[in-house]
This record gives sequence, C-alpha cells and structure tokens, in this order.
Amino acid sequence: MRKCLFQLLQLLIVLAFHQMPGIAQQRIVVFQTDFGLQDGAVSAMKGVAMGVSTELRLFDLTHEIPPYDIWEAAYRLEQTVPYWPSGTVFVSVVDPGVGTDRRPVVAKTRSGHYIITPDNGTLTLIARSLGIDSMRQIDEATNRRSGSQGSYTFHGRDVFAFTAARLASGVIRFGDVGLLLDPKPVMISYQSPIREGDRLKGNIPILDIRYGNVWTNIPEDLLKELGISHGDLLLVRIRKSGRLVYEGELPFVPTFGAVAKGKPLCYLNSLMQLSVALNQGDFSKRYGIGSGADWQIEVVKISR
Amino acid sequence: MRKCLFQLLQLLIVLAFHQMPGIAQQRIVVFQTDFGLQDGAVSAMKGVAMGVSTELRLFDLTHEIPPYDIWEAAYRLEQTVPYWPSGTVFVSVVDPGVGTDRRPVVAKTRSGHYIITPDNGTLTLIARSLGIDSMRQIDEATNRRSGSQGSYTFHGRDVFAFTAARLASGVIRFGDVGLLLDPKPVMISYQSPIREGDRLKGNIPILDIRYGNVWTNIPEDLLKELGISHGDLLLVRIRKSGRLVYEGELPFVPTFGAVAKGKPLCYLNSLMQLSVALNQGDFSKRYGIGSGADWQIEVVKISR
Amino acid sequence: MRKCLFQLLQLLIVLAFHQMPGIAQQRIVVFQTDFGLQDGAVSAMKGVAMGVSTELRLFDLTHEIPPYDIWEAAYRLEQTVPYWPSGTVFVSVVDPGVGTDRRPVVAKTRSGHYIITPDNGTLTLIARSLGIDSMRQIDEATNRRSGSQGSYTFHGRDVFAFTAARLASGVIRFGDVGLLLDPKPVMISYQSPIREGDRLKGNIPILDIRYGNVWTNIPEDLLKELGISHGDLLLVRIRKSGRLVYEGELPFVPTFGAVAKGKPLCYLNSLMQLSVALNQGDFSKRYGIGSGADWQIEVVKISR
Repeated sequence: MRKCLFQLLQLLIVLAFHQMPGIAQQRIVVFQTDFGLQDGAVSAMKGVAMGVSTELRLFDLTHEIPPYDIWEAAYRLEQTVPYWPSGTVFVSVVDPGVGTDRRPVVAKTRSGHYIITPDNGTLTLIARSLGIDSMRQIDEATNRRSGSQGSYTFHGRDVFAFTAARLASGVIRFGDVGLLLDPKPVMISYQSPIREGDRLKGNIPILDIRYGNVWTNIPEDLLKELGISHGDLLLVRIRKSGRLVYEGELPFVPTFGAVAKGKPLCYLNSLMQLSVALNQGDFSKRYGIGSGADWQIEVVKISR
Repeated sequence: MRKCLFQLLQLLIVLAFHQMPGIAQQRIVVFQTDFGLQDGAVSAMKGVAMGVSTELRLFDLTHEIPPYDIWEAAYRLEQTVPYWPSGTVFVSVVDPGVGTDRRPVVAKTRSGHYIITPDNGTLTLIARSLGIDSMRQIDEATNRRSGSQGSYTFHGRDVFAFTAARLASGVIRFGDVGLLLDPKPVMISYQSPIREGDRLKGNIPILDIRYGNVWTNIPEDLLKELGISHGDLLLVRIRKSGRLVYEGELPFVPTFGAVAKGKPLCYLNSLMQLSVALNQGDFSKRYGIGSGADWQIEVVKISR
Repeated sequence: MRKCLFQLLQLLIVLAFHQMPGIAQQRIVVFQTDFGLQDGAVSAMKGVAMGVSTELRLFDLTHEIPPYDIWEAAYRLEQTVPYWPSGTVFVSVVDPGVGTDRRPVVAKTRSGHYIITPDNGTLTLIARSLGIDSMRQIDEATNRRSGSQGSYTFHGRDVFAFTAARLASGVIRFGDVGLLLDPKPVMISYQSPIREGDRLKGNIPILDIRYGNVWTNIPEDLLKELGISHGDLLLVRIRKSGRLVYEGELPFVPTFGAVAKGKPLCYLNSLMQLSVALNQGDFSKRYGIGSGADWQIEVVKISR
C-alpha cells in the first residue's frame, strides 16, 4: 500500500513538473526572419516546430527585416532578447549565404538565452551586450528534419526551426546540438560611442521608422559623464560619411510632450540611448537622416 | 494514511484547477499598438509578459493603427472586444501623450473585459457600447517592471504589458491595480447616428480599407425604424464638412453577390451597421471617400 | 481504501491524457485570409475560437492574400499544410462569393489535415498533392456562433472560425460538421508541368515576391528525367500568353552563393520545384516577370 502511494506521489511530481515552467526549458521559441508574412514560409517553420512538440509556445520578433540585412537582424535581437525569460530560444534567419560554408550555430548567451542562426554577423551586438557563454555548430546529420536532405535552400525550416523546437522542448539538450566552438562569432565592425573632451560621438544604428525618430548608440552613461541632464540644450550634428546633413540646437527632455507639437527634441529611447525626434512628427524624413555604419552623430552641451 | 490521501486529493484539486480555464482569469492578453511589426517593440512587450507567466496566451488585435490615431484605436477595440471571452485582458498603446499626465488606467467593462490603456480617448466607443463597470489608475510604484524606473518612453512594455500579464495570470487582482477612479474615461466627441423624419444621418468612422468599403455608424435598428429592408433602393449622399462628395441610388442587399461585378450596393457589415461598397471593387478609392469626424452620410429610402 | 486509490488513479489518468497532445486532436488551428492585419477581423475570429476553448493553439498562415485571389490561397495552402502535424485544422477565408450559394465545407485530406473553406477553388492544389479523403458541408443550423444569425457578411468569424475551433478542440467530431459530400471540390484549371522530347514546359504559379524569385511548377523528377543535374547550363524561355518575355542561359546550381552577386541562376526551391533567381537581386522586377495561369516557362538542357 505504501509503495502504491509512493508511486502515486511520483506520478504527481512528474505531472506537476511537466506543468511548471522554467525547469530547464521555457518551451518558448521566438522567430525572426527577412521572409515577410505574405507567403507560407514562416508558417511552415512553425508547423515543423509544432510537429516536434505541441506544448511549445511560438512567438515572432519580426519578419520584416529588409532582405539580407544582417546588421538589422543583429540590432533587433539586441533590442529584444533581454526582455524575454532566460531559457527562451530565438531563431534568426537572415541568411544571404545560405548553402555556402557559413556555420549554422546555437549560441548560449551569458544571460541564458539561446540564439539559433547562421554565424554571419547576426550575433555581433548580442555578443557585446549580453556576452556569448558558449557556442555550438549544428550537426546537420543529427539535427535536421527527416526527409529534408534533398532541399538546399530552406535551412530556416529544416534545420534552424527544427533544432530550436527540439532544444526548447527538451528533446535534445544544448550539448546534443553539435561540436563545441570557440565562443567568438563573426563580428560586423561599427563605430563605437565615445567621449572626446566636451563632445560625444556615436553612430546611428537604426531609425525608429514608424515614427521617424533617430536612434543613436550613445548610452545614458556617456551623457552623465558630460553632466548632461534634463532641461539642457544640446548642439547636435549629424553627418553621413563626414558630410554635414543636420545641425541644430535641441533640448534634452524626458518626454515628447515636453516640447510643442512639431518641435525637435533629444531624449533617451527605451534602450536608454540618446535619440532625436520631432514631437508628433517625422525627424528622419524632414531632414533626410538615414541609418547604418556611415551615419555619425556628434553632441555638445551648450547650456542649461 | 487517510491524512496522506487527503493531501493527495488536495494536490490533485490544485493541479486540476491550475489547468481549468476560466477560474477568475482566462490568462488571455490581446495587444493593440501603433508600433507596427518592423521592429522589436511588440516582441519586447510579449517577452515581459512571458516573464510574468509562461502560461499566458498572447494574441494581437492589430499593430497597424496609424501613428497617434486614438480614434482608430478606439474603433478597433469596439469592433473586436465583444468577440473575446469575458475576462480577456486587452492592452492598447496609442499614446501621443506618453510621459505627460494622462492617466494609465485599467477599465473593466460591464461585459467583464479588461482594457489597459492611457486614458486619452481610447475608451470612447467601448464606454458607449459595452459600458465601463469600473476603472482604476495604475499605481506605477507597485505595477512597474523592476529595473525600468529610468525609462521614460516605453510605458507600453514596462507598465501596460507588465500589468496586463500580472492581471491576466492572477499575480494581482483588479483591486491591486491602483486607485479606484470615477468610471468616466476621456471621451472623443463624434456625430451620433440619428433619424430626422424620413432620413437617417450618420458618420463614417472608418473605411474597410483592404476592400475600400465605406462603413457608417448607422445601426440596423435605425434602418428598421424607417422600414428599410432587403431589395429597397436607397438615395445615399456622402459629405465632407458639409460639401457633397458622392450621391447615388443604391440597392440595400444582403450580400455583395446580389449585384453585378463592379456595381455599388448598401449592406450591413459584420458589426450590423450600414455600409457602402462596390462588388469586387474599391468604393472609397473610386469616389474619393475618407473617414473621420468630418465625414457624414445621409440615407433616404426611395422605393422598393 | 482500494476503491479510493483506484479513483485517484482514474483521476490521474484523465489529467495526464488531458495534457497529452495528439489524442484525436492537436488542438491547433491555422488561419489564412485576405483580410490583412490592419483591422480587427482576424482578431475577432481568434476571439471566437478562444470562446470555444482556451486550450486551442492558434496560428497564422498569412492574411496578406491579395483580395479575392483564390488561386494564391490555394497555393499557400499547398506550400504549408504538409509541414503541420496531422490533425491540424486550417481555416482559409478568401471568399468573393460570400453570401451566394458556394458551399462552406470541411475537407479532410488523406494526410489527416482538415481544411475549412468556402468550396470555390481554394482546395484545387491540395486536392492534387495531398488528396481529399472526405468532405462535408457545414450545417449552419448547428455549426454557427449563437447570436450571429442576422449577420450575412462575416462567415469567416461566425461559421468558419467557430466550426474550426469546435472541431480542433473536440467539441464536435468531423461527422458532426454536416452532410457528407462527394470528395470532389471545385477545381481551377491550370497548365500542368510536362516533358515534350528534350524540353520541359510548365507554369509560373507564384513569385517569391520578397526576393523577386520566379517559382515554377516543374518538379525535381522531371529535371532528373531529362538528366539535368547541378552544374548544367539551361536555356530558359519565359512567355506570357505565348509572347516571349525572357530568354537566357542559366546554370542549374544547388545554392544562390554558387554564382556571383547579381548573376542569374536556376535552383530547386524549398518545394523542390525549379525556380529562377538573381543572387541577391530581384529577377522578376529586372525582367518584368509575373505569375498566374497565363505565364509559361520552357527549359532545355544545353550542356554541362
């Protein structure tokens, strides 16, 4: 009788743990691609994942990465990964080199997130911000959807989504992914934010294009180093490949509503980095500002 | 021994209820924003929600609200909320006044739905159709993602999504949200549908832009009051700020297929409100019809 | 005491099976429409489904089918359905004939997938590739959301989504859908891929529009019949309604990276069908290639 009860208890424990999130896996997979949502590619990836385990929770980061734009894929990951629970598995498929010898990898960040991607620069920003704890090359002999060996062009579905689903659901462990690599992913070079005397220099990695806000990579800390605080007036110069595109004096304010409608402002965006905007307007469109490695910004504090 | 069995039963009951939907919460959160899906903002909101509870079920209403268009946010909520189960928690972030003193609120409708939004007019139409049962101001001292106190600009992630996830998962109850307010949200004024003698007047709140159909706020009941039924011919006049833009005689029919391809018709849309369309064509584009508070429609029954 | 334990065991078994996926249903519903994601229509469909059972897992195929384009709806289903687990329920609402007498049906494929759609040609390609095992007409007297009888225009929400949710959650079985029909759906006629001597002829059913790649319906098998293998040079002619639009000599290669940037190539797409592309360019835009029943492609092997 006692043995029977003991077995019941074991069963209960198994059931309970089956329910509990956070034991080893979160069973969460988040997808990012440059496929768009007009065809069935993203849905096929999710179907493959559901075929591995219907208990998975599938989400999207974005599928509107401009085609082949590895830099933007890297940026969107850095912007988003930290807000998901540790143990979440990300799949990022922006893969101009599909079929060539770029390595398919699973990177484990120091924060415990997993990122499955071709190693083509997509990990550049995450590697600097979160740090890569370890990285493995996906062994396609064991981690590939059965029946897909003849297909050369949809690794996103047959290798990346399949491996993500197996890892997130606990069918395989990180160690089963494949060969342990040196945790040094391919890196894209870009201008770092720096302080030079009384001025800050930085890069415009991305536009908040829905609103036309200009985001920089200059962090709050550098602003503080220069003693910049809310209410200060800043001289802002924006250059493309050295050529001056915009120059203006803007207040550094906590919120858009602190200036009149249509007026420019500097603020900290949701990543706590210096940004430039028009209140209820499109700064980037009005002044012809773009983003990328060749766009630079320079900031000097004028007065209070 | 009996005690042991009793405890087992308790455990079972806990497990069973943990599984059962609809006990207090549906664990459903539905997101609406004007962020678009090109960047990581919506995904970050969902990541924060998953960090609260991986048992939540997260859905989207739309993220394509035109930037700052509170009226359209209000309209989309009215169109959609009633079709979700009572207890569903909605997050609507169209927030031109972010950082100013507009109140972050949770409104509970008379139908038992929860809507989390800045109180800036977004609740206008829901307040009239479903009715607001009670409303609380979110106390950001207790209902804010830890570590987000320095961020001024992404309330959607740090306050609204976080609070929605905690409310939907049962971590907090409605009473824990914050101060009980007078259940009178900020209202946007707009033309109500009325009957004046033999004519109906109303507003064009929105276009069904995918197809170019023109939707009005004139309900089925007003049509019945005037004795309008399928097969009747209607004189329709559409004005912008009083200026006549369209005039035509259209049949009131049950379905698009009741008129020839390319012909105009009046019908009841899925909200059971009078609408105007071309069968397999774009009425709004052909006749230059828009939507908003300054667009009016007038309908007279001509004949059978 | 034994009886008590026995009942506990029964309870445990019920709980455990409640958890196990794949008992009769996968509880998965996948939605496809031509509604777009700008309004609340898709969300209302999902709300209705959640009202049937919060245990359902809801996904999207695409909602960007061009309005009324039944052919593309058929194509997206064929591209995607096989990658989802058997038992998955699909809802496809591209319905120019809504309200006319086209039949609302549930088709069960030979692979065990269910497709709920107006029978208007949407099943054309799935019927040829997967095969229809059986088909039933939805009895709207029993399978319609209560309170929706007055609405003529949103079958997607009130009949299709509602029935899908009930079928996927086990509230009804396939036999409860309605009258058993002859399993012969309405078919759209289109050019089949054929071999004529030393040449292959086929159709361009769709463009991979995100990248501008041209997809054909010529399968790998036909290429093998002609002895075409990687490294071969192919003469490709593309015609619209007989008129020559493109002629060129292209290598047949395993991956895009096998040719220089900007150069054209032939490859097998993820459906293992012959396709034409520019490496990191837009073939369809550069040469003005479209898709549809009137677009033809002809391929001859030139040399190794």
